[in-house]
Amino acid sequence: MAVYMEELDAFSYAQKIGEGAPVLIPAGSIEQHGPHMPLHVDTLLSRRMAGETAQRIGAIVAAPMAYGYKSQQRSGGGNHLPGTTSLDGALVTEIAKTLVLEFIRHGARAIGFVNGHFENYQFLYEGADLALRELGCAGEDVRVMLLSYWDFVDEATIGRLYPNGFTGWDLEHGGVLETSLMLHLHPEQVDMTKVVDAPPAELPNYDVLPVRPELTPDSGCLSSAAEATAEKGRILLETASAGMSEAITSEFGLISR
Amino acid sequence: MAVYMEELDAFSYAQKIGEGAPVLIPAGSIEQHGPHMPLHVDTLLSRRMAGETAQRIGAIVAAPMAYGYKSQQRSGGGNHLPGTTSLDGALVTEIAKTLVLEFIRHGARAIGFVNGHFENYQFLYEGADLALRELGCAGEDVRVMLLSYWDFVDEATIGRLYPNGFTGWDLEHGGVLETSLMLHLHPEQVDMTKVVDAPPAELPNYDVLPVRPELTPDSGCLSSAAEATAEKGRILLETASAGMSEAITSEFGLISR
Amino acid sequence: MAVYMEELDAFSYAQKIGEGAPVLIPAGSIEQHGPHMPLHVDTLLSRRMAGETAQRIGAIVAAPMAYGYKSQQRSGGGNHLPGTTSLDGALVTEIAKTLVLEFIRHGARAIGFVNGHFENYQFLYEGADLALRELGCAGEDVRVMLLSYWDFVDEATIGRLYPNGFTGWDLEHGGVLETSLMLHLHPEQVDMTKVVDAPPAELPNYDVLPVRPELTPDSGCLSSAAEATAEKGRILLETASAGMSEAITSEFGLISR
Amino acid sequence: MAVYMEELDAFSYAQKIGEGAPVLIPAGSIEQHGPHMPLHVDTLLSRRMAGETAQRIGAIVAAPMAYGYKSQQRSGGGNHLPGTTSLDGALVTEIAKTLVLEFIRHGARAIGFVNGHFENYQFLYEGADLALRELGCAGEDVRVMLLSYWDFVDEATIGRLYPNGFTGWDLEHGGVLETSLMLHLHPEQVDMTKVVDAPPAELPNYDVLPVRPELTPDSGCLSSAAEATAEKGRILLETASAGMSEAITSEFGLISR
Amino acid sequence: MAVYMEELDAFSYAQKIGEGAPVLIPAGSIEQHGPHMPLHVDTLLSRRMAGETAQRIGAIVAAPMAYGYKSQQRSGGGNHLPGTTSLDGALVTEIAKTLVLEFIRHGARAIGFVNGHFENYQFLYEGADLALRELGCAGEDVRVMLLSYWDFVDEATIGRLYPNGFTGWDLEHGGVLETSLMLHLHPEQVDMTKVVDAPPAELPNYDVLPVRPELTPDSGCLSSAAEATAEKGRILLETASAGMSEAITSEFGLISR
Amino acid sequence: MAVYMEELDAFSYAQKIGEGAPVLIPAGSIEQHGPHMPLHVDTLLSRRMAGETAQRIGAIVAAPMAYGYKSQQRSGGGNHLPGTTSLDGALVTEIAKTLVLEFIRHGARAIGFVNGHFENYQFLYEGADLALRELGCAGEDVRVMLLSYWDFVDEATIGRLYPNGFTGWDLEHGGVLETSLMLHLHPEQVDMTKVVDAPPAELPNYDVLPVRPELTPDSGCLSSAAEATAEKGRILLETASAGMSEAITSEFGLISR
Repeated sequence: MAVYMEELDAFSYAQKIGEGAPVLIPAGSIEQHGPHMPLHVDTLLSRRMAGETAQRIGAIVAAPMAYGYKSQQRSGGGNHLPGTTSLDGALVTEIAKTLVLEFIRHGARAIGFVNGHFENYQFLYEGADLALRELGCAGEDVRVMLLSYWDFVDEATIGRLYPNGFTGWDLEHGGVLETSLMLHLHPEQVDMTKVVDAPPAELPNYDVLPVRPELTPDSGCLSSAAEATAEKGRILLETASAGMSEAITSEFGLISR
Repeated sequence: MAVYMEELDAFSYAQKIGEGAPVLIPAGSIEQHGPHMPLHVDTLLSRRMAGETAQRIGAIVAAPMAYGYKSQQRSGGGNHLPGTTSLDGALVTEIAKTLVLEFIRHGARAIGFVNGHFENYQFLYEGADLALRELGCAGEDVRVMLLSYWDFVDEATIGRLYPNGFTGWDLEHGGVLETSLMLHLHPEQVDMTKVVDAPPAELPNYDVLPVRPELTPDSGCLSSAAEATAEKGRILLETASAGMSEAITSEFGLISR
Repeated sequence: MAVYMEELDAFSYAQKIGEGAPVLIPAGSIEQHGPHMPLHVDTLLSRRMAGETAQRIGAIVAAPMAYGYKSQQRSGGGNHLPGTTSLDGALVTEIAKTLVLEFIRHGARAIGFVNGHFENYQFLYEGADLALRELGCAGEDVRVMLLSYWDFVDEATIGRLYPNGFTGWDLEHGGVLETSLMLHLHPEQVDMTKVVDAPPAELPNYDVLPVRPELTPDSGCLSSAAEATAEKGRILLETASAGMSEAITSEFGLISR
Repeated sequence: MAVYMEELDAFSYAQKIGEGAPVLIPAGSIEQHGPHMPLHVDTLLSRRMAGETAQRIGAIVAAPMAYGYKSQQRSGGGNHLPGTTSLDGALVTEIAKTLVLEFIRHGARAIGFVNGHFENYQFLYEGADLALRELGCAGEDVRVMLLSYWDFVDEATIGRLYPNGFTGWDLEHGGVLETSLMLHLHPEQVDMTKVVDAPPAELPNYDVLPVRPELTPDSGCLSSAAEATAEKGRILLETASAGMSEAITSEFGLISR
Repeated sequence: MAVYMEELDAFSYAQKIGEGAPVLIPAGSIEQHGPHMPLHVDTLLSRRMAGETAQRIGAIVAAPMAYGYKSQQRSGGGNHLPGTTSLDGALVTEIAKTLVLEFIRHGARAIGFVNGHFENYQFLYEGADLALRELGCAGEDVRVMLLSYWDFVDEATIGRLYPNGFTGWDLEHGGVLETSLMLHLHPEQVDMTKVVDAPPAELPNYDVLPVRPELTPDSGCLSSAAEATAEKGRILLETASAGMSEAITSEFGLISR
Repeated sequence: MAVYMEELDAFSYAQKIGEGAPVLIPAGSIEQHGPHMPLHVDTLLSRRMAGETAQRIGAIVAAPMAYGYKSQQRSGGGNHLPGTTSLDGALVTEIAKTLVLEFIRHGARAIGFVNGHFENYQFLYEGADLALRELGCAGEDVRVMLLSYWDFVDEATIGRLYPNGFTGWDLEHGGVLETSLMLHLHPEQVDMTKVVDAPPAELPNYDVLPVRPELTPDSGCLSSAAEATAEKGRILLETASAGMSEAITSEFGLISR
């Protein structure tokens, strides 16, 4: 079944929306992801996570927000790194708001952001909030969810995939999580021979701007991808998409269609 | 040779920019294109046009602006049609401005927009202008070009591909141009059995808002795609990318690097 | 009958609006128009075109948008030329949106932009669209038209006025069209002895920013005004205003008042 | 000597700017001015005041800001009155900022706003301030003045023109000041038979929104124009333009050109 | 009785709003006030004026707008003076608009700005106006007042407190009014030994930007505070808060709750 | 030593800035904090944390950002709760940006945000980033830090203060952390008899808008404050301010003054 909106013709899309299909909006980034992975990892993974979820619940996946908010040093290495191409927060918010309003205009009543770039979250949230506020006077009955796919990897899976200990999602930039998923979904875009097997980055408990570049490892990755495997990627995809499917069904089942 | 930025790793991208590669930004839309083609025709075609051009001249193609300005009735059938998902003009302008500034920050000095959605043009132009104005006080030596790929289909080719007469690019929405290109590049996304072979739409020489929906043909196409063929698509791709390559080389050869 | 809003007193204006008079908003520019014409040609002509049209159909003409969007090289010679004083696109859009909302607040239900500066069009369109969207939740029954006066000069008239061939409206900057209209309406503001009789400008089929000034003729005009006459101006005014009157009456007759 | 920019051709304008002519920007409004005067009184008077001043000091008068900030009840009767067509404060500020930046781009170094609509002042001031801040990094040597023409009517003249007592400039909306000036400059646009000779409006020392319409006299005027004469208008024009000329010369003489 | 919102717990606040209490929003500034007073004089005094008024009428005082619009030379000495920390006009407007909308969302129906910084006024007014316009489509029955506390010091009190003549509120920056109020309310924050007893500043009847710093007295005060006393402060507080209480009761008594 | 900017006179402030004092900007909120605490807990605590830190390192504390970003259900209970008065993200960003630019204009070179409201963080970060970008062309040598005070409570202290287990900072809304600090600093504003001793809130691992109010405990607190004591507050204040002092000194010691 086709789930990606942009590959549908207008009439098929309209029919699905008319049947009550939720719309999932992938939110990624164009951001360096080390020497072993391409720039669009976040966009690709959020799109595929949304796609897998949509398959399970009969949703539509919107064309992704390919560019995201600025990379921050403590979660993405910093916006100064080569190739990282970012939008201001206000722009991420406006795009998110616009897409919510557009899909509602089309007839959708249940919309979910599937975030694949940590830094996006607050700006997506604000976009969703502004869209709902703008709809206020029209008495719309609409719900918007905001999901970061890694939040649906449960403790048990973490324990299984990180047998030597887990350093937290914030350091999983270019590490085992993303690399495993890429190995599972797009192995031709990963070059494991270029992985730099270094200890996790040590970053302060605050931000400073302009960033001090020396705090980010030369590879641009905050933790090592050496332990990444396609099998781990398969498990992560399945676990996260199952969790998101359950959450979305649970929330959007409440909406009267 | 890889030309699509998002598929490059950060270090390869940085090297290409360092060697002076221009950056081409495809600008498309998510817009109904009749019952026989998917919603992302403009985005796909602008991206592939940019890709073909980049191959010829050693440029990089940025991740596309997937969403575009509102569909207007006289060139796209109107923004009310199902699936058409659009941004306000200010948002198109801000995204275009941001991308120019980001690629310049990376070190690029020659940037071109390859437009595939008529309605985008003025807002892209404004984005480019604002970016250059913002750079003014830093004394940057940068050039930005704005190209609509159909403007590089010469009169001879038009005569050859439209033997029964050409009704103008504005009515080429979902017609021979776009359908032929899709048949050449993504035949699996075209269903020629669904083409509606109707005469060109007759639209007034002004706009009225809200649109009068009855003025747009039911198919959403402004002219018939019945005469579209993959071979015509091949010719169009070659002609337009050759023309754009020549124009870009001619302009950007003037920049001192 | 007085048609210019700014010359009416408040009570007379209110009465006309109460009677259902449409409001026409002239949109011009302060832009160089060669050595033989003043800077406000676009503003003056759009205002007079609107005035002539208003006389025919009982409309009111708003105070004009005197400043317009940036002059583009392929239609106005470029924004770098002396005297050209321009607004950003967002500002043109905001002014257009505001005026639509204000006249609707006054009670008008039919509003038309009479554009006299090519570059304004998309930004006026966006302003009208945003105004109508903002009114959405109030269930207003309003229509807005967007007209460029030269689009109402029919093929027959073109053949008659340009016996040696017509090079297109985009090159009619400071040429026969505008100069003839000025000779008919404000001959005291035209100095035909300063007309530069040069062949039409040859401009590329794309834009480049910053502009290359050498592409614009030294006069700032894109085609020669040597063949301009007051009689041609009279014909143009009559033809265009008659065409616009017919279009407006046709559209706005549909509105229930 | 021609002082109005829009009536100059581009080359003459450029020459004047090159010679160091200051640019005066009239700022008015489209606002009800009672049954005896047209809607553009503020725009017309600020333009003529600027014109008279420009004649004296060799300045150029820009095309006026024809629309202004919202009419406030304590100085203009309120924005609810018929015909009053207003811009948001941010829009007045953006237009003012843009014009300052444009004239500086042309080469002007001395710019003055000649305000004719009380409510505009703070928004013009902000526009001027933002323009200068934006120029900061380019080290521009530019000055901007903000003048309200009535502030240049001295106490002696007030005593002479208001023998029965003066109630303050805020109540001079549609009263003796503006009506006398109109009688002097555009008598054909004044109908003294429609003047309502009522005592000055009594308004509270605060604002309340939405306005209470009953606080504004039915005529829309805050004081009576019955004592207005063309002769008073002549004196007011001469006094104010002389005062402004002196102030401008004094300030702008300090600029090194 | 507690009147300051920020010191209430959520449930007590909700109860008061539910009982129909008006909300008063103090609007101040962080602005130099001479060598004898701290930077937050305007914020402190507007807050205390609002507090005294709220006590009298059962209102709630919102957390103050601590930062205000730029200090202008003719009323505050100028924004260039040390310590003066200001917001752009658009920001003051947006904050004012947001607060009105928030308190209305809470259930308030009567809101008053108590202004303590001259330069804020127009931007507060605009914020209130925009908030009410945004509420338009929801048919809200809401009133917003705008009060500058010094406007409620009547002529008799002025005569009593300024026996040697009153130079106008605009020159009362750091002078008798503010210093007396501070001596009454926060004597520990005033150092009368540092008062500079100079004649009132002489400032032109126009503004020029950038300001000419030499026009402002070195102390930063526009008139002398030498005659300030705590007793005068007590009288001013009582007079102004009594006047504001009367005005607010008069206006908001009309609202149906 | 006085550290609070608003209580300094302009000259003393200027002297401190001239001596190189960093400026700390407290960022709080007006947000419900249960029945036992007032609405300004976040503002008060961020201000006092900044004050204590400033005492240690010779910094100045700016007047706080009293209003903050919208309360989110998973960290503050939700924006729908009574008394919560919030700003849009863009507004928080603009205020943060403006304050950075203002203090830099004054001569400061080291600025730190001391955040006391979780939801503010990304918008403060964006404001700091935009300010530095705007300064780019002026070659300023400036650093901005962003600190959330709770991030400086180390593991050892957490173990000591939460002997029965720690549920994470996100649930510490109205719980032991904030209540203990208030008991230490402002005991008169806490009513421990109103504390609701309920188990921590159970919230999903995603957000949904509009919020489902039933997910937030009736008290508005996400964890119980029953174990809060003034002594814990003293330890928290000391630990966090010591940690922040060390971080700031470490970063800003690198700046050349």
